[in-house]
Amino acid sequence: MPHSKWIMSAKTAKDHLAGPLFLCVLSNTDTCRIPNISAAGATTELNDYTPAADAEIVVYGSPRSAPEMPMKKGGAPTPAVMTRAALQLTGMPYFFINAGLRIVPDVPTIDLCADPGRDIRQGDAVSHPDVIYASACQIGSQFGKLSDSIIIGESIPGGTTTALGVLTALGYEYGVSSSFSENPLEIKRDVVRQGIDASGITVSEARDDPMRAIASVGDPMMPAVAGMVAGLADVVASADAGSDMGSGTGSHDCDIILAGGTQMVAVFAIMKHLGLDMDRISIATTKYVYQDRSIDFKAVIRDLGCRIHVVDPGFADSRLPGLRKYEAGEVKEGVGAGGVMYAAGMSGVDQRTMLGTVEAVYEELMREDGV
Amino acid sequence: MPHSKWIMSAKTAKDHLAGPLFLCVLSNTDTCRIPNISAAGATTELNDYTPAADAEIVVYGSPRSAPEMPMKKGGAPTPAVMTRAALQLTGMPYFFINAGLRIVPDVPTIDLCADPGRDIRQGDAVSHPDVIYASACQIGSQFGKLSDSIIIGESIPGGTTTALGVLTALGYEYGVSSSFSENPLEIKRDVVRQGIDASGITVSEARDDPMRAIASVGDPMMPAVAGMVAGLADVVASADAGSDMGSGTGSHDCDIILAGGTQMVAVFAIMKHLGLDMDRISIATTKYVYQDRSIDFKAVIRDLGCRIHVVDPGFADSRLPGLRKYEAGEVKEGVGAGGVMYAAGMSGVDQRTMLGTVEAVYEELMREDGV
Repeated sequence: MPHSKWIMSAKTAKDHLAGPLFLCVLSNTDTCRIPNISAAGATTELNDYTPAADAEIVVYGSPRSAPEMPMKKGGAPTPAVMTRAALQLTGMPYFFINAGLRIVPDVPTIDLCADPGRDIRQGDAVSHPDVIYASACQIGSQFGKLSDSIIIGESIPGGTTTALGVLTALGYEYGVSSSFSENPLEIKRDVVRQGIDASGITVSEARDDPMRAIASVGDPMMPAVAGMVAGLADVVASADAGSDMGSGTGSHDCDIILAGGTQMVAVFAIMKHLGLDMDRISIATTKYVYQDRSIDFKAVIRDLGCRIHVVDPGFADSRLPGLRKYEAGEVKEGVGAGGVMYAAGMSGVDQRTMLGTVEAVYEELMREDGV
Repeated sequence: MPHSKWIMSAKTAKDHLAGPLFLCVLSNTDTCRIPNISAAGATTELNDYTPAADAEIVVYGSPRSAPEMPMKKGGAPTPAVMTRAALQLTGMPYFFINAGLRIVPDVPTIDLCADPGRDIRQGDAVSHPDVIYASACQIGSQFGKLSDSIIIGESIPGGTTTALGVLTALGYEYGVSSSFSENPLEIKRDVVRQGIDASGITVSEARDDPMRAIASVGDPMMPAVAGMVAGLADVVASADAGSDMGSGTGSHDCDIILAGGTQMVAVFAIMKHLGLDMDRISIATTKYVYQDRSIDFKAVIRDLGCRIHVVDPGFADSRLPGLRKYEAGEVKEGVGAGGVMYAAGMSGVDQRTMLGTVEAVYEELMREDGV
């Protein structure tokens, strides 16, 4: 034995944190199988593959598990092309979270062991959201020790309808956005109404117990994101208190950016009613969501006190027709695209470089598709 | 829209890294079902539960999924008590990796989608180790952007036998350690000989293609650890080169500590023959493994050029008989215990504090067990 001491050599421990980290929650809800409700897949039948395909496009540049691209033929590309481009430009670390997937991607995921969400029309959409929340909290508390700025995105087809479900249950009438340029809001409202009626939940019950709103008319992405945020906040809160498993890292600030449109507004509202400290939490999204007149962002900012960062990826000037379709309202946002582009901009990437990189990623994807 | 610029506000990006991070790979191999080969469970039948129970003990202080404690009645406790104590004292972030589990813990894991390993006597132990390696590499490359010091541990019952398998296949005769105080080395050597004969692999074939040695007589933990290390190294190598998805984080040093005994010696040998840069990779383990005369550490250091950090948790002075059994050679090491205790020591925790915390964790665990 080369030494008799407890530890054989000494080295100065470093005690500082990395830059932004991107976490992307992948989920399914059977709500997306309701005809004409989501454009987040080539067809309604293929919507289940979209989160897995999005993750594969972010990591590899093209899908591996899915039989088709996660987008309409001839339509605007999945927002995963923006996410991949922004991650390439920043070198930002990223992880995918499996929070109720039907199709697991060919990419490692952090598995919360959640079931996919059910069709919200029955009013019994998510099993044990509190268990998903607790698992996500455990993961969030670890990531909070590693980074001072966390961006959380999502990919869940049908997610704007479940967002409308929870916002309605909580008594907010902001409307929601859509991956269609023509938002099928009437269909969504009808679906939500059926779900709320079936569950019997009232606004005051939902506000007292947001987990019940999720269980009734939400989706499994929601407790996953809320739980991770609670875990991140927990690290901050416990850093000086020396609590169990949370001590020793020293106090630090952690900015949390919810990357997405209406779905993240719903998660923000859930967390507010859960009583979480919302001071360091903001939303980042694309201008395509922000300019969507289906949702009243002024009311969101006024009611919820939510700061919103808006990103214009400059697709109006793109040489590629598919990207220009975003300007006409197709797809709009997803896979954390707005949030990671915001972080890219914050780190000094300009709009022209961002656009050029998105175009290159999109062309690479189209070549893989044989177009 | 509150602004017309690409990004609405500016903030200085931070570009430094967190302190040590602990990654623990959890796997099963059917090799542990061979009678009298492993003490890493209450009984041979219950060995499959051990990695899940270990993870639950680290996170919660007691097992949740397993029907029994992952240890012999009246025997030394699982090394998970040391791991939990060291993580409590340091607040170090940690994640568990599922690399072929039969029983998934009640703790979120990063899922590499690997199958459990088969009994090595048939010479066909691991399916597609290259795929496990590639998935692990993807995860390693992300963690490498977050921390400058990564400690990798394992929990896989039967793992010293598969370690002997791969070391033998690679032509090294160091012997291996054991979780029994009386090491059943003859049984292990016989099992390994059957596996090598069944696979037909030669030493030169194994050295040319260590993945084939894993596929024949290894286990799924091995390509998971090797792949994560390759991914971590990849970040370091590509940080200045601006390669795809790895650029932008700036160059940094990443120390990698393989936390364990003989099993990590086997992984070290595999990585050396894979041609990885081994400069910043060392092994940390407990003195109970280091002092085990079943393994020739002098030869390991001489042949492989491997630096070994040795930790004495001071159990000789414990008031608890279960911990003193480590001094008699029971259990010895596992769940990254040596590595996280080494990191705790490096961060200024003294031996007396370490021992007191391990005792408290062990007593908490025994209370849960109703003892």
